[in-house]
Amino acid sequence: MAPTRAKLADGRDLLFFALPGHRPAPVTDRRPLPARDPDQSWLRYDQTTGQWVIVAARRQDRTYKPPPDQCPLCPGPTGLTSEVPAPDYDVVVFENQFPSLSGDGPAAPVPGDGFVSAPGHGRCEVVCFSSAHTGSFAGLEPAHARLVVEAWRHRTADLIHAPGIEQVFCFENRGEEIGVTLTHPHGQIYGYPYLTPRTAVMLARAREHRMRHGGNLFADLLAREVADGGRIVARTELFTAFVPFAARWPVEVHIYPNRFARNLLELGEEELDGFTRIYLDVLQRFDRMYEAPLPYISALHQYADTEAQADGYFHVELMSIRRSADKLKYLAASESAMDAFISDVTPEDVARRLRGLG
Amino acid sequence: MAPTRAKLADGRDLLFFALPGHRPAPVTDRRPLPARDPDQSWLRYDQTTGQWVIVAARRQDRTYKPPPDQCPLCPGPTGLTSEVPAPDYDVVVFENQFPSLSGDGPAAPVPGDGFVSAPGHGRCEVVCFSSAHTGSFAGLEPAHARLVVEAWRHRTADLIHAPGIEQVFCFENRGEEIGVTLTHPHGQIYGYPYLTPRTAVMLARAREHRMRHGGNLFADLLAREVADGGRIVARTELFTAFVPFAARWPVEVHIYPNRFARNLLELGEEELDGFTRIYLDVLQRFDRMYEAPLPYISALHQYADTEAQADGYFHVELMSIRRSADKLKYLAASESAMDAFISDVTPEDVARRLRGLG
Repeated sequence: MAPTRAKLADGRDLLFFALPGHRPAPVTDRRPLPARDPDQSWLRYDQTTGQWVIVAARRQDRTYKPPPDQCPLCPGPTGLTSEVPAPDYDVVVFENQFPSLSGDGPAAPVPGDGFVSAPGHGRCEVVCFSSAHTGSFAGLEPAHARLVVEAWRHRTADLIHAPGIEQVFCFENRGEEIGVTLTHPHGQIYGYPYLTPRTAVMLARAREHRMRHGGNLFADLLAREVADGGRIVARTELFTAFVPFAARWPVEVHIYPNRFARNLLELGEEELDGFTRIYLDVLQRFDRMYEAPLPYISALHQYADTEAQADGYFHVELMSIRRSADKLKYLAASESAMDAFISDVTPEDVARRLRGLG
Repeated sequence: MAPTRAKLADGRDLLFFALPGHRPAPVTDRRPLPARDPDQSWLRYDQTTGQWVIVAARRQDRTYKPPPDQCPLCPGPTGLTSEVPAPDYDVVVFENQFPSLSGDGPAAPVPGDGFVSAPGHGRCEVVCFSSAHTGSFAGLEPAHARLVVEAWRHRTADLIHAPGIEQVFCFENRGEEIGVTLTHPHGQIYGYPYLTPRTAVMLARAREHRMRHGGNLFADLLAREVADGGRIVARTELFTAFVPFAARWPVEVHIYPNRFARNLLELGEEELDGFTRIYLDVLQRFDRMYEAPLPYISALHQYADTEAQADGYFHVELMSIRRSADKLKYLAASESAMDAFISDVTPEDVARRLRGLG
């Protein structure tokens, strides 16, 4: 089903994804929004690491923990109070009002020497999982969760070959512990104008692996994890969830399709259903670990069907900074300054615990 | 002045560094400490990134926010209450009781395929900046701060060519906001059995730069920063402190000696004095930014005089997650999952602010 398209008062796109039998009924966004700033952000190149950094100074003013009756993600039937001018919705996606990346333009240039910068072109979207202000992804009905997956898939299709976009990143940050400023269940999508550092490293590793062994790095690792078994959390005919051998976070689970695919577009209907099921399963296990829901980051690693990204294997990396009922892991000097991660738990212990929470 | 050496009850090293005229008087550590575990930690190799991860499961039990009268870093004149069995001290260094890395052994091996692990050999030391339970590095008298620098220098000399150690990392984590569990002013030193990922990337970039241009990457960047001037925070005859062009953190300052040196051992007495002065100056500016002291990470980037590390230029990278008086920056999905940093402030604004706080 194609989404219903609308525009917000300042021209931003708004897309409604509806469950069967539901018909979105957007109203006019009548808020007096400021005009969008075409120079919202800039990229700066760090010569010492070869990485781009996004400088988005206007984001300092973004919405910060509003009271529930002023939530900008709840439906706004009057068209005066919300980012979603409609009496109700199932799943919506709209362009972020405070984007780190925005506007059309070429991808980030190949950097020369000295101080190199470029406009922060790209795309930042918000995905509201449900019109209910409270709740979580883990609590969605399977058909509703499947609709979110459909929204991710639609947005990926739209953005993955858009001019200037090198990488499409669907993700969710959940929990005040990791800085979430709006509690209404939602995720985000970034369209970066460059390959992110972690993705670039993983693709380089995979290319090297293929040159040396002929196979796909991620497929080989998945096969090894399945053969070992000690870190498997859940496995279905179509998907496998495991704690990776060298997990960096106190809770870390990766979900792979059992068959190689680069992104959600390369999965069939049955696989998308299977993905929804195992993803809900893992998130529900997370929330059974402690009395309070687990704060987590969910990161969908998707790759384009291009020469540069050919070795990328679609998967989700879920991670949490909670290291016990009352303690968090902080990224201190070893992690933040040297990228050297230290884990306080063994991946096997975490996997055992999560297996028991199914 | 050579430090006074002692041993803790379980055999760990303890070193006293004293101000002129002070004579350390350690007493016997009479605590019934458990024997040290030679297998405290393991390294695991992440094939998807080419990075080692340290798994130190016993650290879950490490001392967590003890009440002030049970602080293990305060002097313990009875030899029964503290990690520092002595009536008083100026600066002490001792091996961490809950180390991420410990024991002698070869450096991390060159990893093959599949699940690769290795013993977590190396060294973790604690550096107590002062016997006073409250206070901070920024509040130390210059001569006392200079003694801490001397302790860093001594430990660097001891460890930088020790068998199995590839990188010596002196650092401070300050503030509960970044997870500090002991408030007594202290820093730490890690001797890693491998080159940390960030250091490896920086050295690779510097090597590339030298091949292409003949000069040193860091020296060239320093010269550019000085010529530009817009991000300079403080500059003396011997040292320069600036906010880097592509800063990743809400507050980030790098301090470089104006003359190329790889580590503290290659600095002369006058330079060590000058380093102490500018380091104190920057930390004092940090604490004037907001009503409460600024949480920060201080990371000393030191390099060995070896072929592999020849292009490394000694400097300190200071960073803070505080982005306003009442808000912190969290490393959410873009940073944690993709290593793609987004900054909410321009480096020029931060530099201007810090210049005004001198």
